[in-house]
Amino acid sequence: MKLCTFERQSPKGPELRAGVVTARGIVDLSAANPRLPPSVLGILEAGAMEEARAAADGAKPPALVDAAAVRLRTPITRPPSVRDFYAFEAHVKKGFEKRGEPMPREWYEIPVYYRSGNHNIIGTDEDVLWPRFTEKFDYELELAAVIGKRGTNVAAADAGAYIAGYMVMNDFSARDIQRKEMKVRLGPAKGKDWCTALGPVLVTANEVGDPYNLTMTARVNGEEWSRGNSGTIYWKFEQMIEFLTMDDTVFPGDVIGSGTVGTGCGLELDRWVKPGDVMELEIEKIGVLRNRVIRK
Amino acid sequence: MKLCTFERQSPKGPELRAGVVTARGIVDLSAANPRLPPSVLGILEAGAMEEARAAADGAKPPALVDAAAVRLRTPITRPPSVRDFYAFEAHVKKGFEKRGEPMPREWYEIPVYYRSGNHNIIGTDEDVLWPRFTEKFDYELELAAVIGKRGTNVAAADAGAYIAGYMVMNDFSARDIQRKEMKVRLGPAKGKDWCTALGPVLVTANEVGDPYNLTMTARVNGEEWSRGNSGTIYWKFEQMIEFLTMDDTVFPGDVIGSGTVGTGCGLELDRWVKPGDVMELEIEKIGVLRNRVIRK
Repeated sequence: MKLCTFERQSPKGPELRAGVVTARGIVDLSAANPRLPPSVLGILEAGAMEEARAAADGAKPPALVDAAAVRLRTPITRPPSVRDFYAFEAHVKKGFEKRGEPMPREWYEIPVYYRSGNHNIIGTDEDVLWPRFTEKFDYELELAAVIGKRGTNVAAADAGAYIAGYMVMNDFSARDIQRKEMKVRLGPAKGKDWCTALGPVLVTANEVGDPYNLTMTARVNGEEWSRGNSGTIYWKFEQMIEFLTMDDTVFPGDVIGSGTVGTGCGLELDRWVKPGDVMELEIEKIGVLRNRVIRK
Repeated sequence: MKLCTFERQSPKGPELRAGVVTARGIVDLSAANPRLPPSVLGILEAGAMEEARAAADGAKPPALVDAAAVRLRTPITRPPSVRDFYAFEAHVKKGFEKRGEPMPREWYEIPVYYRSGNHNIIGTDEDVLWPRFTEKFDYELELAAVIGKRGTNVAAADAGAYIAGYMVMNDFSARDIQRKEMKVRLGPAKGKDWCTALGPVLVTANEVGDPYNLTMTARVNGEEWSRGNSGTIYWKFEQMIEFLTMDDTVFPGDVIGSGTVGTGCGLELDRWVKPGDVMELEIEKIGVLRNRVIRK
């Protein structure tokens, strides 16, 4: 099932609705079943995935909407948290190489992450602002898992049951300010905080099947820049969840980023996007996340 | 004014209420004025500080409650964000010295921060869990500012108007895992994420006056370990707000930590708290934040 958030015109102006993308159109879940929460986050929090599936199966107009008549937005407008890992060895190695530092052995000991902003998440076909504080804007091609139920002290062997599904993630980065921040050792913050793209839809775990064998590509203005496979990941989402939940709790809607796949950003390739460029990040079985960067 | 959140017994069980601590007792704000939002975060979001002040001024029982009959909780149960800076030069210098690295010049160029967990905030007289993943538990003595209104691209000269008030912050740290994380360059995450203490109350900016001349002390089991002054800060909250809001937005209830004041943690002193120890962090004009660490 492909859960989505879409924008629909209403007499009170545009409103956001939880939906399911099907071959026949988009199912407006609250219209199909008024007992369903009106947001994807609400559906996750209520554990109402099966009810959503049932509502989508039999939907007819007006609960079944023409996909061309509405606009997709990011599936979870404000996730409780966005934590981004650093799980692809090729990307991490390249980064340390560029900084002239040895690969730290600690990277192999624990799955390391940082927290990113959860307050400005955009979806597909939305513009991202080129912030005034950077001359080095970059994309990062990542796979994101979404937590489906609350969990504390979850073992990796049990962690699969806590993943509701997956999205494509573009972890926009301001490389010049990020480089300065990382010299001070607190990790990236302002260099990543202002915006992240997640979408185009949230594909449920059962529909994705094996998340560790998905082709991942990035195109800029239609030209392929990056190509990788999720199977090259070193730390798996199940291990990340075990790490995160050690004497701590994950909540429905929490987003866990994989980190950049090898070759999955301009920094690795020394190629740089310009204002007006369109980035298309695609992951097999999930879809294409398309964002244009605009400089005001 | 000293805003607080307190727990009161009700026929439906314990409930959290927004209050004001006065010399005569605690004013239950919703009881004094039913139009006021029932949480401190709600009051900040509604910009209802003056209404809260007016409600507190004339309050009589039952809106005026005996302070001994209720329990203080953290003023903002789940802040929209917790971003912690690194603004005291003495603490940063000591950290780099301990790691055998030179102080980076970038620290003097931008106010660096990391995002911490906002999902497990405790208040005064609540126990903090000694997590199973550390042998080196530590406290950090910090001053926290709380955002009072939404702002984007706020200049430092105007930023004072965006600060609602101040709290004491204990940024609990698991030093062994934090050290590993920082070697991988994404900054602290699991080493800080599981819990933070903020309180005991939120003292409004007008009552604090100059936030850059406050004595800050930490005691462990009654013995003074740390002593500093907020005036030794290098980056001011106004500069942090300018930095955070560059092409980005701050929201009411966002918490901004100062970073640890010089000598304000066990790591600097090579003294370590043990399970069962009681940490008391005190900042002049704000109060005492008291937490016992327990190992399960």
